[in-house]
Order: sequence, then C-alpha cells, then structure tokens
Amino acid sequence: MFQKILIANRGEIALRVLRAAKELGIQTVAVHSTADAEAMHVRLADESVCIGPPASRDSYLNIHQIVAACEVTGADAIHPGYGFLSENAKFAEILAAHNITFIGPSAEHIRVMGDKIEAKRTAKRLGIPVVPGSEGAVRDDRTAKKIAAEIGYPVLIKASAGGGGRGMKVARTEANLSEALSTARSEAGSAFGDDAVYIEKYLEKPRHIEVQVVGDGMGKAVHLGERDCSLQRRHQKVWEEANSPALNIEQRTRIGETVSKAMADLGYSGAGTIEFLYEDGEFYFIEMNTRLQVEHPVTEAITGIDLVHEQIRVASGGGLSVRQEDISFNGHAIECRINAEDPRTFVPSPGTISHFHTPGGLGVRVDSGVYSGYRIPPYYDSLIGKLIVHGRNRVECMMRLRRALDEFVVDGIKSTLPLFQELVGNVDVANGDYDIHWLENYLADHH
Amino acid sequence: MFQKILIANRGEIALRVLRAAKELGIQTVAVHSTADAEAMHVRLADESVCIGPPASRDSYLNIHQIVAACEVTGADAIHPGYGFLSENAKFAEILAAHNITFIGPSAEHIRVMGDKIEAKRTAKRLGIPVVPGSEGAVRDDRTAKKIAAEIGYPVLIKASAGGGGRGMKVARTEANLSEALSTARSEAGSAFGDDAVYIEKYLEKPRHIEVQVVGDGMGKAVHLGERDCSLQRRHQKVWEEANSPALNIEQRTRIGETVSKAMADLGYSGAGTIEFLYEDGEFYFIEMNTRLQVEHPVTEAITGIDLVHEQIRVASGGGLSVRQEDISFNGHAIECRINAEDPRTFVPSPGTISHFHTPGGLGVRVDSGVYSGYRIPPYYDSLIGKLIVHGRNRVECMMRLRRALDEFVVDGIKSTLPLFQELVGNVDVANGDYDIHWLENYLADHH
Repeated sequence: MFQKILIANRGEIALRVLRAAKELGIQTVAVHSTADAEAMHVRLADESVCIGPPASRDSYLNIHQIVAACEVTGADAIHPGYGFLSENAKFAEILAAHNITFIGPSAEHIRVMGDKIEAKRTAKRLGIPVVPGSEGAVRDDRTAKKIAAEIGYPVLIKASAGGGGRGMKVARTEANLSEALSTARSEAGSAFGDDAVYIEKYLEKPRHIEVQVVGDGMGKAVHLGERDCSLQRRHQKVWEEANSPALNIEQRTRIGETVSKAMADLGYSGAGTIEFLYEDGEFYFIEMNTRLQVEHPVTEAITGIDLVHEQIRVASGGGLSVRQEDISFNGHAIECRINAEDPRTFVPSPGTISHFHTPGGLGVRVDSGVYSGYRIPPYYDSLIGKLIVHGRNRVECMMRLRRALDEFVVDGIKSTLPLFQELVGNVDVANGDYDIHWLENYLADHH
Repeated sequence: MFQKILIANRGEIALRVLRAAKELGIQTVAVHSTADAEAMHVRLADESVCIGPPASRDSYLNIHQIVAACEVTGADAIHPGYGFLSENAKFAEILAAHNITFIGPSAEHIRVMGDKIEAKRTAKRLGIPVVPGSEGAVRDDRTAKKIAAEIGYPVLIKASAGGGGRGMKVARTEANLSEALSTARSEAGSAFGDDAVYIEKYLEKPRHIEVQVVGDGMGKAVHLGERDCSLQRRHQKVWEEANSPALNIEQRTRIGETVSKAMADLGYSGAGTIEFLYEDGEFYFIEMNTRLQVEHPVTEAITGIDLVHEQIRVASGGGLSVRQEDISFNGHAIECRINAEDPRTFVPSPGTISHFHTPGGLGVRVDSGVYSGYRIPPYYDSLIGKLIVHGRNRVECMMRLRRALDEFVVDGIKSTLPLFQELVGNVDVANGDYDIHWLENYLADHH
C-alpha cells in the first residue's frame, strides 16, 4: 500500500480523496494555488504545497510543479480527482517516468477513450452497443436511403469534419432525406470546407444513463450499476440518481454485465464510467470517462462501496475488495450539485459564505469543501457542495431530499439550492419522467 | 396519517423527530423553554410555542402547558423523544383523555416496564432470560447456600429494600457466603431499617447488549438486531455499536427472536429496547425502555430502517413497514455521543459555539441541534451532537470514524471529541474487547 498520496486537485473532490486516503491510513499531501491557501483540503491534509498562482494552467494543470511537489514531499502516488489532469495521458506517462503511481487507468486506455472515434470503435469491438449509422461518410443519396432504412427513421445527418451542431440535420422520413442531406452537405462545406456527412440513428427523447465499473487491470472487472444523469443544463449534470427510474433489474444486469465483461477484456484498471444515451429499451454508447465522476456518491450510497478506496487499492496492486456476486443495490440515492450561482440566471456568485450549515440525519451525505467564513475564489468552477440522499426506495429518497434541502443553509452568496427545491416538488421529477432535454425545457418555461 | 405532530422535547432528538415528520409530509410544532428560543428545532419547525421558563419541570415536563400547546396549534399527536415525558404513563393517559395520540406504547406497558420488579416478572413470563436468583428475600443461611449452589458462584447479595450499592456484597465461594450474608444484612438493616436480602448471580465482566424491537400493537413485532453499549461512564453510554463485536449471527438471531416473540405476545406498540447484561454466551434482562433511545441511529445505519418513521406509522394505525424477513444487517456502525464537557474532568462546558463544522463524506451521519454561533444553555444535558459512522465491516467503520473525528470542529467551548480520538486509537476498543467496567477503568488510569 502507498505511504503517501498527493491529491492533484481542489474543492470537494480533493477532500473526498483525502478522506479515503486517511481511512486507509495513508498520509496525504494537498496542493493548492495561491487562491486556495485557506481551502478545507489544505487544512485537513498532513502536508500541503503551493503550486502556483490562481490560474489553473499555472497551478492545477502545471505538471512540472505537481511532480516537483511529489518529489519534495516523497509522495509515491497521485490521485487526480476529476477534471484538471485526470484524463491527461501525458501526465500519466510523466508520472510513470518519475516512478510515481498514477491512481487511474493506463495512459493507453486514457488516450483511446479520450479520442471519440477510437473510443466508439473500441466500444463496438468490445461488444458495447453504439449508435447505429454509416461506417463513414455517405456520398450518394441512394446509399443514404439504404442505410437510413436499415437503422430506421428518424435519422441524424452529421458533418464528418464538424461539431457544434453545424451541418447537422434530422430526417424524419425518407421523403425529406434528400433535402436534409443536401442542406447538411452545403452547411458542412461552407463551415468546414468539407461537405462529407454521415448518418446516425436520431434519438428523440433519450435519457443519459451511465454504468460504473472498476477493473483490477489484470482481467477482472465489476460493475456497480448505473446512474441516471438526464437532468442537465448546458450539458452539465445537475441532478443524478442511482438506480435509474427507467430501468428494471433485468436491463440493469444485462447492461452491467456487458460493460464489465468489456472492461475485463480490455484489462481496464481503476474506476471508469461508460456513458450511454438510452431510449426505448436500447443503450447507445456516447463515451467513456476514465476517472472518478462528480456523481459517484449515488453509486456508493446504494452499494456501500467506497469507490476511492477501490481506486487506491487497485492502483497499489491490491486488487478489488469485491466480487460481482458481493455487490447488491440497496434502495435509491439522489445527488444535487449545489453551485454558487444565481438560481435563475446561473451567473456565478463568488464571495464569502457567511454561514454554511449542512443537513444531517439518516440517509444524508454532504460532500463539500466549504465552511462558514470561506471565501469562494472566482477562478474555478462554481460547485460548492453535493447533497446526496439515500432512502429505501425512490419515494422515501425524494421525501428525505426535500427535508434535507430545507435544512441546508448557504448565506452570503447566491446558490442553486432554490432550483432543487423547485425540482423536488415537480411532478415529472417525482415520477422520474424526464429525458436529457427536460431541464432545459423546464428552465425555458419557468425561469 | 397524522396532520400535525407536536414534538415534546428539545435538542438533537427534537430535530431528529422533526426530520422524520417532515419526510412523512406531516406538519410540525416545536415547543421550547425561554432558554431555547434560538434552538435549531424551533427554527426548522412549521410552528413553535414557548411553554415556560428554563427549568425543565416548568417547561419540558409541564404536561399542562404541552397539552395546551397541542390544543392551540391543533396537533393531533405528540412525539415525546427520549427523557422528559417519554416514559411517563400518566402523560400518555392525559393525552388519551384529550384525544391526542401519544407516539409510543400504551400507558399500561410504560407503567409495567417502569417498575423494576414488575418488569422483571413480565420479562420472565414472556420467556426473556433474567438473572437467576432467589425469588424473594432469603432469611436463613441454609436456603442461601442451596440457592447459591444452584445458580453458581460468584453470587451477589442485595438488600431487598435497598439501592445504590448499600447492603450489596459479593460471595465468591461457599466459604465466604455466610460472612457476606451477615455483613449485607447488617448494612441493609442500618441503611434501610430492613435487613432482608436476596441473592442473584454475579456477573464479573458483563457487556451491555440491548435488542431493538418495534411492535404494531396488534400482535406483530420485529427485532432490528442488537446494540453493544458497554462503553459507559457513570452508567451513561458514551460509545455504541451495532452489531455487537461479541455476538455471532446465531446468537443475534436467537435473542432477537426471543425478544420479538415476547413483544408480539405482549401486544407491544411502537419502538422499545430490551436491555441485557451479557456474559459467557448468556443474556440477563436488566430493563426495558419503552421509547426511542439516544443510540438508535446505529441500528438505522445497519438496517436502513427509519425508526421514527416506524413509530409514527404504528401510532397512526398504519402498521409496520417491514416484516422480519425483509430486515437485514449490513456492515457495522458506531455512535459517539459528543458532549459539551471538559474531556478530562467531564465538567459541563456551556457557552457559545463559535464555530461548528461537521464531518461529511460516505458513511458519516451527524445528528445535532447546534450550529455556529449557538449558545448552549446551562439548564439541560450536555449532549451537543452524535456522530454515527457506518462501514462495510467493523475495521472500515473504525477507520472512517477516526477520519470523521479529525474533521469535526467544535470551537468556543470544550467538548468530549478528544476522548473519542483516544478511544478510536485504543487497542482494546479496536479489538472490541471491553466490558461495562472498561471505560471507568481506562479513565481512572489515563485521566
């Protein structure tokens, strides 16, 4: 087991990792920018090192400084948290060259899964369901019709060279396929100088469902069920659940087994998440995140398994603490990401938190790096805490969430707590009846 | 279901009950003395009523005022918490006469279990194991010898009229029985004017183990496993665990089934705890508490069942939400009672808490009625919070407890946090190797 872990992150996730390391009896080193000298993870770590000025590129993304901090303190491993350097294959390689263990998967797996095309190809090869579509660019309308008929309407036409919605068109029937193709080609040509387009199945109202896996890097992997993260604003998850209100136990088991088998075959090491769009009983691979995710606590709540413990165990060569047959899913959990933002406009609201009081009681977990009197620096993301609530079933969980939100006090700044008080009382949310567009539509109508 | 519950208590337990009521969608009424106007349970309740001056007898024990508060606010039920009026049969009767539901057992069961002799007789009749001994006073040495031989040495000789250790002697062998009898009789005579003594089995190093039950008042009852509360100071529990490190699953099941059958036979309604001394594989009934206990959260942690929900459900006629076969025991939980006291002398330390920061993360629950800036009134008990930690097994639980204690901040007053930091590092505690005398001996040696 490691003697000392350096945590190359800040905020609630730095504290999260620190807690796990402490529980395993491992010494901790915090790193921080000059803006974060008073942060909770710095206060609670055994040692801390200032690694640069506020700007992330000069501190939390500064590989040279972080490696130097490791060498100065004698840390033998680094946990990258999420964001920052957590999916940087080069960082993992540099650490290996310095004989420092990167607590995460191999640089190769980070690289493969970080490349959208390579990731999809790998997923398909491993038997993970992907969005059906043309294998490459579709040049003529006849081929396009054939493919569209195979995958079924509606279909989405996308620019091969593109992104950001430009050169993207939906064809709902064969009758408007030709027109959609020509419009998409023309937009793609003028936007990217390349009029090549490809065809994919179009999902009208998908949910975002992701499967948590942990592999031991030696051919074993387990899945820890799924999370439903459909409630998003501008592609940022806002509210996450485990299990998904949309899946039954057979679906859960089937997709879980598919994914864990794939990760075992890949020889994947550490925690990872396979993200899917889900519609009408089918899963469609989006991407894989080769790191711990913000919403991992809902999985911990229903399984009782500490994912950071597992990451550290695996990275140190100790293997997984659980076999698939030991893992059961108890009750229901919901996480709310509470941001320092105006709850109507979502404009960030940095400043000093005059009073911070977290809810307690049965089934309530708070992961937060802030405290009464803490000044939120304006340089980083606006997440100030995650409220995770667990109940024996989804109804109990929702009732508990409502009362926990009522107890939560964040004074001195604006926070998104009121948004969650709205959501917890909404009938669609109560019924688990939402897709990835629901929250945007709700906000457009009500905010 | 009830429309509105009045909570006839203060501090963390008032908040605990309030949380459960809110989760069930029930309106809440807080009552408070003039000293508690700024208390958290008052702040969070839907309504609050001041019921008198600081002294408990004039406020929290003032039945007249509490009934009046119920009538003014239209509350249809009262939860008594623990302490105060929670085991007052007369209070339960007065409420019944006012058509207010007492959330607890029948007045008759409160009365029976509140009388030590009657409680023991009832327990014995219901098949609950009791301490073997003479049925009544033992007048002559020959009978004493016969009884002592039957129950086995060492035996304890106790004054029939007595209490508080006076007239109490241990005879370790038949050779010193006569002398012990005569000393005990003589002490009893001069202390109580009655030299009658009786004989009981003497337990050298017992543990305190208690079984949690909930009955529906209609002949059904379930047990929720046991708690080990052996770590006590001056008969006050300090640290509680579920499950007991001393029991195996067969013992747990056997005593649990004995107790739940007994409570079903009794027609017991609501939550209750049967307390035992435990030594060498045998259980000996001490008493039954006909109310929620301070340490109930460790049971909630390992079962996932909200005991206050069950109390409210049963009292409202809704029955239990679980059958025995639905109840499983997951992992291990420990509770530390954190008091506003000097951790060496245990002298109360009321005053203003300048900074209160509770630990978070996986497996950590805090039940507390205090907050940063809260002034602890000097009139009541010194409990300021309970830290409850849950892990997949006892080792994980202890590791997590250690790190949670490190995060806990209580500034401005003295608290017993340092005592728990000592205990969590102690080898006997780590091994679960302690009896009801252990903590007193430890404090005598180290404080």
